Amino acid sequence: MVLSATNEDVSLHAVEDTAAVVLPDPLTVEGVPFRRSNAGKFSGGLAAASHSDMFKHPDLNHKPLSKRWDHRLSAESKSRQATQLKELAKYLSKPGMLSLGGGLPSSEYFPFEEIDVKVPALDVGNHEEITMQIGKHDVREGKSAYDLSIALNYGQGSGSAQMIRWVVEHTEIVHNPPYRDWGCTLTPGSTCATEHLYRMFLEKGDYVISEEFTFATAVETSGPLGCRFIGVRMDDEGMIPSALDELLTTWDPISRGARKPFLVYTVPSGQNPSGATMGLERRKEFYKIAQKHDLIILEDEPYYFLQMQPYVGSDHPSPPAPKTHKEFLDSLVPSLLSMDVDGRIVRLDSFSKVLSPGSRTGWITASAQLIERFTRHNEVSVQHPSGISQIILHRLLDETWGHGGYLDWLIHLRMSYTERRNVLMKACEEHLPKEIASWTPPAAGMFHWIKLEAEKHPMFGKKSVKEIEDEILETAVQEGVLVVPGSYFKSEARKPLEARELYVRANFASAEFEQMTEATRRLGVALRKSFGLKE
Amino acid sequence: MVLSATNEDVSLHAVEDTAAVVLPDPLTVEGVPFRRSNAGKFSGGLAAASHSDMFKHPDLNHKPLSKRWDHRLSAESKSRQATQLKELAKYLSKPGMLSLGGGLPSSEYFPFEEIDVKVPALDVGNHEEITMQIGKHDVREGKSAYDLSIALNYGQGSGSAQMIRWVVEHTEIVHNPPYRDWGCTLTPGSTCATEHLYRMFLEKGDYVISEEFTFATAVETSGPLGCRFIGVRMDDEGMIPSALDELLTTWDPISRGARKPFLVYTVPSGQNPSGATMGLERRKEFYKIAQKHDLIILEDEPYYFLQMQPYVGSDHPSPPAPKTHKEFLDSLVPSLLSMDVDGRIVRLDSFSKVLSPGSRTGWITASAQLIERFTRHNEVSVQHPSGISQIILHRLLDETWGHGGYLDWLIHLRMSYTERRNVLMKACEEHLPKEIASWTPPAAGMFHWIKLEAEKHPMFGKKSVKEIEDEILETAVQEGVLVVPGSYFKSEARKPLEARELYVRANFASAEFEQMTEATRRLGVALRKSFGLKE
Repeated sequence: MVLSATNEDVSLHAVEDTAAVVLPDPLTVEGVPFRRSNAGKFSGGLAAASHSDMFKHPDLNHKPLSKRWDHRLSAESKSRQATQLKELAKYLSKPGMLSLGGGLPSSEYFPFEEIDVKVPALDVGNHEEITMQIGKHDVREGKSAYDLSIALNYGQGSGSAQMIRWVVEHTEIVHNPPYRDWGCTLTPGSTCATEHLYRMFLEKGDYVISEEFTFATAVETSGPLGCRFIGVRMDDEGMIPSALDELLTTWDPISRGARKPFLVYTVPSGQNPSGATMGLERRKEFYKIAQKHDLIILEDEPYYFLQMQPYVGSDHPSPPAPKTHKEFLDSLVPSLLSMDVDGRIVRLDSFSKVLSPGSRTGWITASAQLIERFTRHNEVSVQHPSGISQIILHRLLDETWGHGGYLDWLIHLRMSYTERRNVLMKACEEHLPKEIASWTPPAAGMFHWIKLEAEKHPMFGKKSVKEIEDEILETAVQEGVLVVPGSYFKSEARKPLEARELYVRANFASAEFEQMTEATRRLGVALRKSFGLKE
Repeated sequence: MVLSATNEDVSLHAVEDTAAVVLPDPLTVEGVPFRRSNAGKFSGGLAAASHSDMFKHPDLNHKPLSKRWDHRLSAESKSRQATQLKELAKYLSKPGMLSLGGGLPSSEYFPFEEIDVKVPALDVGNHEEITMQIGKHDVREGKSAYDLSIALNYGQGSGSAQMIRWVVEHTEIVHNPPYRDWGCTLTPGSTCATEHLYRMFLEKGDYVISEEFTFATAVETSGPLGCRFIGVRMDDEGMIPSALDELLTTWDPISRGARKPFLVYTVPSGQNPSGATMGLERRKEFYKIAQKHDLIILEDEPYYFLQMQPYVGSDHPSPPAPKTHKEFLDSLVPSLLSMDVDGRIVRLDSFSKVLSPGSRTGWITASAQLIERFTRHNEVSVQHPSGISQIILHRLLDETWGHGGYLDWLIHLRMSYTERRNVLMKACEEHLPKEIASWTPPAAGMFHWIKLEAEKHPMFGKKSVKEIEDEILETAVQEGVLVVPGSYFKSEARKPLEARELYVRANFASAEFEQMTEATRRLGVALRKSFGLKE
């Protein structure tokens, strides 16, 4: 089903006249046209202001309001003010007003008349392609809700109204946040969003809590702000809630030299580097600890839709793909956002792993209070993601594929990544020495995390664990295979690597199948050499 | 002339064999193919590292090195480190190496197979269009130096090697910086670059120096960092160097509550809001003061190429357009960068006003030391501008138009903006009351700055100047015209508006000609009403 701008023409009256008809659930793909018709005329002109509430489920009154987070905001964030020039916008609605007030150039001088993009047709498996035509004046010509004359000009700090509508609908279909005043704002990728969020919550000297191994860039971003990471013990479901509780319960500001931390950075699904995915119960426990200590959680979820089919061994075929959108959505571990009654989750979504990193487009979902602060920051820094990226994504996700087609694409990715993971698992089972290497098959993401038994290394006790890790990397390189040493991801890089912390990370997202198998064979050879095992 | 990737095939040997032939000046459009052939094979693969020196004039040894700026860097900027993961890249060059090390997804899963863009053909006046075809594997297929498989994936913090090559060449053709170790790095627009630069140089409590009226967003960006703007008296050529000198010479850190400022934010051409353009002598004087007080200058130049033909009165036709690239380049006021022997200028360029704001792509030019710090910041925040924007710009600027075609486009814009300005000047001369309104016809940019005689307002002395300004705005709105009150741009908004500071700003970049004239007529009516003048 293609959801085009013409869906808006379905009139509310037509619906009222047929009250006997069962209306589609507004929180499903099928409910989107109904939601849109209820929302009234869409306004997405030049630099059009928008607000998530314009596109959310119309009746959220049964849900609680978010808590207030004033006590968690940094001085920098609290001091942000809306730009004074925006005050003038109120005059523009006066009939007949002529403006010499703006600062926008004319689209007449943008030398891009039309952008056509070849994309897979809805039935992804068929390898059929269709061409999306994006013109300069598609809105005026009634062809679309968005065109180049709008996308190529300046826009709002929240991103375009068109894309905000889409991400709000998508977020509600997938997560249905259980509080009322949530919202979304676009970001030029989650790395940038993370930096903005640090500046929004942290003061110099603060700690950020994360898994003991974590995304290196998240740590590196915090350093120049005068902040440090502190790691919480993890298992194959990620951060251990009781360990988090203990860290916070026993926090002594004086000996730690810092106030009790309240900001957690976590990747709950297909964590980088460990590949760990928090199960539902783990997530519930984790959220309870977050409530107990009044934490703000940055739920960074680039790999959420790279959740794969259950791993059933290398000799068994994977279970069949989900047959319906509901079956697919039900197969996903519920997000932290979906259980967030307080509005303490800031969820980071990104198109990087599911459509293209080069789009530099993602969004965050959080309480309206936090979204407002974040958007103020956008206005005086990145402004908004590339309008060219935004309009291509919108044309694809909204007007070509629609919400349903996008879920079909995600199912296609799920099956592709499942196949990739299975190839790597089979290779690991065949080629790695089980005496010293062990792993949990990843349920999501792009990474496989292989634990090595430092104690079984011939140099254990004579060399430091870091030196043993260096030696393993060198041996692997000599054998012609590159993997990433686990120490690169230590959230507290200042502490020495412990024996229980000897890991390597392998990526199964990009190599050809045969190369992946050969690389794993070489890794097996290298590990046997390094650990002095027989071939 | 279209400069395509095939220019690289011109071999250096062929050039050596014909030593008698006069070689084109490498600093001209015609010299680019020669520069490229001298530079050797271009390497622009997946996330390829690049450095401006790879693309600069090969022989810069006669130029001095930049001064060091360690004493000007903030603690935040000094603490930035290169990401550890990049260390692994050295292993990838080993022959036969297979990598499971990366974190990049496969382009197989990017659902964008081809992007075609309709753009004006080189002969802009002809209204002819050509279609640029951008494929996923154009590099492999020998069609281009850049393709979607590269642009849609992650790239380097400096931006793509392809775009860095182009901006370095362009910068050298236009500005030819007089020191040796300059470089460029891409930005997602100059607003974002400004924020990064503040964080690079400023500590909390610092002042930024600017014109007394300045771009409101530049001021608003500094506030949350705990910094303030201080304005320097200006005339119709912008900031007055002697006033800048006096401010700094008499700076008393104790009474000011801040160290002596060293960071200047200025828009030397077509300044926003005043439309003022510093002439060559003014620029030289200004640079001398910058040297005297060891200043760092942020030369924000969004309107540099919106320098117009000389204004010769509304009854005279504009002088004819420049006939050659040389004539065009010679017609531009030399940039501060072009006289920067010390490396103290950080120049901000942007495609927003000359190609499209929605591309969210620009670049900065500065000393290699500063470029390196800036790029480190990019890596842990915005990463790089949208790859989709980058590849469309590259295909247009490098492989379709080439450097010469881009200059032709800029000449086209120059003539278009000249016409627009002239329409507004004629309307102002006809409709505004000269008893109380005066102006200098702008030589560059998008803005016209109209001075009003506060002392001649009937309420002068009874109401504050700000109240008089409010009243003028209200009267204009009642007459159906919107202009922006000058106080919105005061760099020191905390100080009361003085009588000499009563201005309104009009934009001539976007309204239709007839609307611009009618809006000006209404403004004339409003001003007469407000000042109690006869119709």
